Amino acid sequence: MVGGGRDAFIGAVHRKAIALDGQVDLVAGALSSSPEKAKASGRDLFLADDRNHGDWQSLLDDEVKRPLDERVDFVSIVTPNHVHFPVAHAFVEAGFHVVCDKPLVHTSDQADALVDAVARKGTVFGVTYNYTGYPMVRQAREMVRTGELGEIRKVVVEYNQGWLATRLEGEGNKQAAWRSDPARSGAAGAIGDIGSHAENLVATVTGLEIESLCADLSSMVAGRALDDDGNVLLRFRGGARGVLIASQINTGLENDLRLRVSGSLGTLEWRQERPSELVHLPHDGPKRIFTRGAPWLCEAAQRASRLPAGHPEGFIEAFANVYGGVAADIRARLSGVPADPLAVDYPHLEDGARGVRFIERTVASAQSEAKWTAW
Amino acid sequence: MVGGGRDAFIGAVHRKAIALDGQVDLVAGALSSSPEKAKASGRDLFLADDRNHGDWQSLLDDEVKRPLDERVDFVSIVTPNHVHFPVAHAFVEAGFHVVCDKPLVHTSDQADALVDAVARKGTVFGVTYNYTGYPMVRQAREMVRTGELGEIRKVVVEYNQGWLATRLEGEGNKQAAWRSDPARSGAAGAIGDIGSHAENLVATVTGLEIESLCADLSSMVAGRALDDDGNVLLRFRGGARGVLIASQINTGLENDLRLRVSGSLGTLEWRQERPSELVHLPHDGPKRIFTRGAPWLCEAAQRASRLPAGHPEGFIEAFANVYGGVAADIRARLSGVPADPLAVDYPHLEDGARGVRFIERTVASAQSEAKWTAW
Amino acid sequence: MVGGGRDAFIGAVHRKAIALDGQVDLVAGALSSSPEKAKASGRDLFLADDRNHGDWQSLLDDEVKRPLDERVDFVSIVTPNHVHFPVAHAFVEAGFHVVCDKPLVHTSDQADALVDAVARKGTVFGVTYNYTGYPMVRQAREMVRTGELGEIRKVVVEYNQGWLATRLEGEGNKQAAWRSDPARSGAAGAIGDIGSHAENLVATVTGLEIESLCADLSSMVAGRALDDDGNVLLRFRGGARGVLIASQINTGLENDLRLRVSGSLGTLEWRQERPSELVHLPHDGPKRIFTRGAPWLCEAAQRASRLPAGHPEGFIEAFANVYGGVAADIRARLSGVPADPLAVDYPHLEDGARGVRFIERTVASAQSEAKWTAW
Amino acid sequence: MVGGGRDAFIGAVHRKAIALDGQVDLVAGALSSSPEKAKASGRDLFLADDRNHGDWQSLLDDEVKRPLDERVDFVSIVTPNHVHFPVAHAFVEAGFHVVCDKPLVHTSDQADALVDAVARKGTVFGVTYNYTGYPMVRQAREMVRTGELGEIRKVVVEYNQGWLATRLEGEGNKQAAWRSDPARSGAAGAIGDIGSHAENLVATVTGLEIESLCADLSSMVAGRALDDDGNVLLRFRGGARGVLIASQINTGLENDLRLRVSGSLGTLEWRQERPSELVHLPHDGPKRIFTRGAPWLCEAAQRASRLPAGHPEGFIEAFANVYGGVAADIRARLSGVPADPLAVDYPHLEDGARGVRFIERTVASAQSEAKWTAW
Repeated sequence: MVGGGRDAFIGAVHRKAIALDGQVDLVAGALSSSPEKAKASGRDLFLADDRNHGDWQSLLDDEVKRPLDERVDFVSIVTPNHVHFPVAHAFVEAGFHVVCDKPLVHTSDQADALVDAVARKGTVFGVTYNYTGYPMVRQAREMVRTGELGEIRKVVVEYNQGWLATRLEGEGNKQAAWRSDPARSGAAGAIGDIGSHAENLVATVTGLEIESLCADLSSMVAGRALDDDGNVLLRFRGGARGVLIASQINTGLENDLRLRVSGSLGTLEWRQERPSELVHLPHDGPKRIFTRGAPWLCEAAQRASRLPAGHPEGFIEAFANVYGGVAADIRARLSGVPADPLAVDYPHLEDGARGVRFIERTVASAQSEAKWTAW
Repeated sequence: MVGGGRDAFIGAVHRKAIALDGQVDLVAGALSSSPEKAKASGRDLFLADDRNHGDWQSLLDDEVKRPLDERVDFVSIVTPNHVHFPVAHAFVEAGFHVVCDKPLVHTSDQADALVDAVARKGTVFGVTYNYTGYPMVRQAREMVRTGELGEIRKVVVEYNQGWLATRLEGEGNKQAAWRSDPARSGAAGAIGDIGSHAENLVATVTGLEIESLCADLSSMVAGRALDDDGNVLLRFRGGARGVLIASQINTGLENDLRLRVSGSLGTLEWRQERPSELVHLPHDGPKRIFTRGAPWLCEAAQRASRLPAGHPEGFIEAFANVYGGVAADIRARLSGVPADPLAVDYPHLEDGARGVRFIERTVASAQSEAKWTAW
Repeated sequence: MVGGGRDAFIGAVHRKAIALDGQVDLVAGALSSSPEKAKASGRDLFLADDRNHGDWQSLLDDEVKRPLDERVDFVSIVTPNHVHFPVAHAFVEAGFHVVCDKPLVHTSDQADALVDAVARKGTVFGVTYNYTGYPMVRQAREMVRTGELGEIRKVVVEYNQGWLATRLEGEGNKQAAWRSDPARSGAAGAIGDIGSHAENLVATVTGLEIESLCADLSSMVAGRALDDDGNVLLRFRGGARGVLIASQINTGLENDLRLRVSGSLGTLEWRQERPSELVHLPHDGPKRIFTRGAPWLCEAAQRASRLPAGHPEGFIEAFANVYGGVAADIRARLSGVPADPLAVDYPHLEDGARGVRFIERTVASAQSEAKWTAW
Repeated sequence: MVGGGRDAFIGAVHRKAIALDGQVDLVAGALSSSPEKAKASGRDLFLADDRNHGDWQSLLDDEVKRPLDERVDFVSIVTPNHVHFPVAHAFVEAGFHVVCDKPLVHTSDQADALVDAVARKGTVFGVTYNYTGYPMVRQAREMVRTGELGEIRKVVVEYNQGWLATRLEGEGNKQAAWRSDPARSGAAGAIGDIGSHAENLVATVTGLEIESLCADLSSMVAGRALDDDGNVLLRFRGGARGVLIASQINTGLENDLRLRVSGSLGTLEWRQERPSELVHLPHDGPKRIFTRGAPWLCEAAQRASRLPAGHPEGFIEAFANVYGGVAADIRARLSGVPADPLAVDYPHLEDGARGVRFIERTVASAQSEAKWTAW
C-alpha cells in the first residue's frame, strides 16, 4: 500500500475492505509522504520492519528484488491525487498489478500513458470507484442492460455533501486542504472529488456515452481555489439527456449520491445513503423496491452480497467487492484459468481514464462561452 | 367560473377548493367552450339557468347588467392557457376581481397589458400557483426570510412526472392534447405546464431573482410538438446557483415536485408528495422534520392549516388556501378595512407575469447557441 | 347537525367533508349543548334562523313538523360520546337517517336498542369510522378478500398519539376534558377514543372476528380518570393472532394509526400519516408500493379517489368518502333504485355496535385476573 | 472458534467482524460437529493443521497444553444453542476468555453455573447481542440515561421476519432445522432466536426491569415444533408498560427489529434496517433525526463508528463493535491497566443470563392460564 498513514481517511477504508473477506493480507507499505510518519503508521499495522518503507520508491525497489513468490501480488495507491500517476506508472512498468483510488490522474495524457503501459505489461488495474460495488448498483445495471427500462431517455445524478460549506482548508483540516489545492487535487474540486463518482455511476449503470456537456462551476466559499459546486447539463449519444450535480456546500447533507434513470418503460432510483434499496417504477404497475439479499436479484447483485436481506451492508462491503473483483482477476492470471466474468466485476483503467476526461471537459466547459462543449 | 366543465380536470379541483371552507359559493358560469357542454356542466353543478351561460362573453354581459349586490365577487378562469388572456382582460376591464390559472398568458406583452389593467382598475388578481398554498412551503419561506439558512447559495428544484411518457395526445386524452398544442398551451410544454410551478416555488420560498439561465429542452416522445423534458441551469442575482428540472417523461413518477435550498447555515428540503413535512438540515446539528399543525411553526404556516398534526391535508387544502387569500383580499376591499397581511397570502399577478417571462427566456435559451441568456 | 359548534373539533371536519363534493348542504342544526353557543355557531355557518336551534330536541321537533320535501335527509351527530345515544335513538325513531360519530354509544344495551330501532324503521345509519374511507384501506380490504395474502395469520394494529402525555384535561383543554371524563367518554379513554378506530380498521380490512382478548390498560398521567395507554393481545376465530396498541402518551407522535397484516402469501402495511401508500410484501417477490390514483387499483379504491396520483388527498377526503357512501344509500332509498354496492361503502351500525362490544370486553379484560376474556 | 464451519451462517459473520479492524486473528478452531467438515472448514480459512481440530475437546486439550504466550486469547462459540453450555463451561473452567452467541444456554441453571464459573475464574465473557453494537443504539441508551426522554412510560419492541413462513425445516434448510428443533434450539423458537434480541435491546437502551409478563406463543406453520410467532405484554418495575413482538412468519419482512421508547419528555424510534438513524420526537419541538458519524453524538456512539456520516455502516460493523469491547477488556486484563469504561462496551454474561430467564418466563406464561407471570 502506498499512502494511507496516520490521519489519512481512505487508506483505512481500503484496509478494512481488504481484511473483510480474509482473502488478501497487507504485507508491505510506504504509508505516507513523510518517512517518519510512514514508518510509524506501518508499525501501527504490524508491518514487518523490512517491508515498512519510508517512501514508495524504496517499496518498489525492495519488491522487485524479492523472489516472485515473496512479492506482493498488487499495490494499492491511496495517496492524494497528484501522487497517483508516478506511483501507478512505476509499478505497472515494473510488472505489478495495481489498485488506484480515483480520480485516476490529473490529465488525459497521464491516463493515456497508463493505458499504454498496462496494455504492454498485461497487468490488472482497478480503480476504486467503490460505489459501483454496491449490489443494488449492479442490479440497476442489469435491469438497464436487459431492457427492463426500455430506451433510456433521462438521467439525473446528484452527489451532494455539506462538509465544505465553510473554509475548512483554512482550519487545518487535512482532507479539505489537499482537495482544495490545485497542485494536489487537480483542475477540479467538487467535480473531481465527487462529480467523478457521479459520472462513473451513470456510465456503469446506463452504459450511455456523453456527447457534449454544459457546465457551471462555482466556488461558493470565499477564498477557495477550486469549485465546490458544479451543475452540468449532459447530452448523451443517441439522444438521452441528463443533469449532473456535484456540490460540497449543501449544509447538513452527508454523502448524498443519488441516481435516477428514466427509460421509456420505467424508472430506477438509487441512493447511496440507503444502498440496499433499489426503487423500480414501471410505467404500467406499482412501484417496486428491490432489496439486497433477495433471491430474485440478478446473479451479479447476489454475488456482491454477504448477508441475508435485512442485515445491513454498507460502504466497506461495497469497497470490498471492488477488491474482490481485482483479486479474482489476479488469481485468474496467476492460475491461467480464464476468470468467470461475473467474478471480475470491478472498475477498470478505462473507467479511470474516462473519469479524467470528464473532469477535463467539464472544466473546459465551465471556462467557455459556448453552450455545448463536445466530449 | 369560466371553463372547468365536464371532462376538465382542474376546474373540479377549483370548485372543491372553493367549497371546502364554506366561504365562497359558485353561482354563475360559462363552463366550456362548447355552449352545449357548458350548459350541461352548469346543470350538473346546480347553477341557476339564468346564470349558466354558453360562453364567457354572455357571462360577462349578464354580470355587468346585474345590480352590484347581485354580481359575482370574482371570476375564476380555469380554461386551457390560450383563453386566459381575453377572459381575464375583459373581466378586469369590467371591474371584476379575477382568479386565473397558470401559466398566466402566452406572452409578456399580454402579461403587461393585464398588469396595466389591474393597476388602473384596482382589482384583486390571484394566480393559482397552488403549491405555494401548502403550509410547509410557507414555513420554508419564513425560515429563509428570517435568516435561518444564512445566505442562500444553491437551489435545486425538480418537477417530475411520467404521464406523458407515451404519446397520449394522439390517443384522445384531452388533458394531453391541449397541453402539447402550441396554439393552446403556448411556446412551451413541460416547462410551461410544470416548470412554471417550479419557478414560482423557488421565487416564493427564496425571493431570489434569476439573472441568467441556460436551458436544454427536448421532446423525447416522437411526434410531440412541444418539450416534454427540460433542464435549466440558473444564475441568481447575488451569486446563488440553481438547477431547475421539469420533465413529463419520467415513467412511473407521479407528481414529484421537490425543492432543496441550501444556505450557509442550513438546507431545507420539501416534496409535494409528502407535503406535511419540511426537512431542515442545520449545518451544526441533527436534521429536523417540521410537520404541519405543530404549534412551533410560523403563523403563516399555522393559518394555512385546518387539522391537527398527523391528520393529513393535501392538494385541495393547499388550493383552498390560495382562494382563502384572494377572498380575504376581496373582503378587505369591500369592507374598506385594510387586510391583515397574513390573511392575503396568495400568488399575485406579478407572480403570473414573472412566470410568463420565465417561460419566454427558457425557450429563448433553448434555441440559442449562447451559454447564458439574460433574464 | 347536532353538536360541532364553536370550539368543537370534529364537527368542522364533518362540515368540510360534507361540503367537499357539493352533494350535501347543511341546512339545520343544534350545534352545542349550550343554547347560546349553539345559535351563535349556527349564525357563523349561515344557517337560517328558523333552522338554527338551541337544543337537539327543538331541532327534532321542528324537522318532524316540516313537510317531507323540506325535511333534512339525515342528521349528523358529532357531540361528545354520551349524547350519541339519546339523539341517535330519537332521530331513528322519528324516521330520520343518521350519521353518528364513534364510539357509537356507551353500552352494548344501547347499541342493541339502536340496532333494533334501525331494523324497525329501515333507516340508513352510518358511523364515521373515517379511516376506512381512505382509498388504500379499501385496496387493502380487497387484497385480503381476493386471497392475495393467503390465509391471514397475524395482525398488528397501533394507534399512537402523544397529545395526552400531560394532564391537558386540567388545563382547560375541552377536547381532553370530555375524553377523560367517564361520564361523557364512557368506560374507556384511549381504548374508546382511538382503540376503537384500530379495531374497526382490523375488522374492515381483514374481516377477522375476535374470539378472545387480553388487555392491559393504564393511566400513565397522574390524576387521569381513564386509560391513556392500552395494549391488547387478540385471538381471532380461525387461529390468527394479533396485537392492538392504543396510546395517547407517546410524546411527539401525532396521529400514528398503522396496520400490518401478514398472511401465508404476503404482508400489507398501511400508515394513516402516509395514507396514499399501501405497502405489499409478497412472500416471493420484491416489495410493492401501491399509491392512490393508480389505474391498477381495485374499483373501490379508485372510486374513493378524486385526484390523479401524486396529488395528495387526506383526512377530509377520506371522511367525505364515508359521507358519500351514506348519501348514495339515502339516494338509493329515496329513488327506489337498488344501490350499487360499491357506492354504499361506509361503516354501518353493526360496525358501531361491534366497536362498543370491543370497548366493553377490553375493559372487562383489563379488570380480570384471567388471561383470556371471551368476546 | 468453535462452530461456524461450511454451511453455517453466523460463524462467517463473526469472522468478518473479527477481521474488520485488524486487531484479532483467528488462529485455531473446531469448526463443526462433524470432524471431517470441521477440518475442511479450517483449511478453507488457512488454519494451521495443528490448530485445526475435529472437535472442541481436542481444541481445548491442545490449547491448555500450549505455553501461555502461544494460547488463544479467547474462544468464540458460534454453534447451535445446545452446544453453548458445555463448551463455554469447559473453556471458562480452563481459564479462557469466551465470546458466546445468544441465546446463551438452555436453562437458568446452566446460566447460573456459568456465572459462578466466571466469577471464580475472573475471565471475560461476552455475549453477541450484536444489535447493541450499533452506534445509534448506544446514542439511544445515552439519551435515556441522561434523562432526555424524562420518565420512561412505554416501550414497544418488535422483531419481525418472514423467512419461516413456510416449513423450511422440512426442506433441508439447516438454519431452519436446528432453530425449530427443541433439542438444539431450546424451549422456544422465535422467542428464543429473535425475541431474546428484542429483550436485550429494551434492557440495554432503557435499563428497565421486567416485573411480570403475559405471553401468547403460537406455531402458525403446521408441523412446526416450536413457536414462530410470539406476542408479550410487559410490565416493568416502576410502572412502565411494554409490548414485545417476535415473529418469523411475517411474509416479506426481512430483519425488522424496531424499538420505540416513550417517556414523559419525548420518544425515540430506531429500526435495525436503517441503523444509522435514530429518531427523536421531543414533546415540545420538531422531530429530530440523529445520524451516525455526527460530532454531536455521545462519545459511546462516536467511538462505535468508523466512517464519516453518510457512508453506511451495517451489521458486521456493529458485530465488530461487540468484539472490540471484548478485546479491549481482555487487553486491559493482560496489561493490568484498568480499562476505559467506554472501551469495554459489550453485552456481558449477565445479559446472556437475563435473556435465558426471559425465554423461560415467556414460555411459562404462554403455558399458564394466569394473566401475569412474575419474573
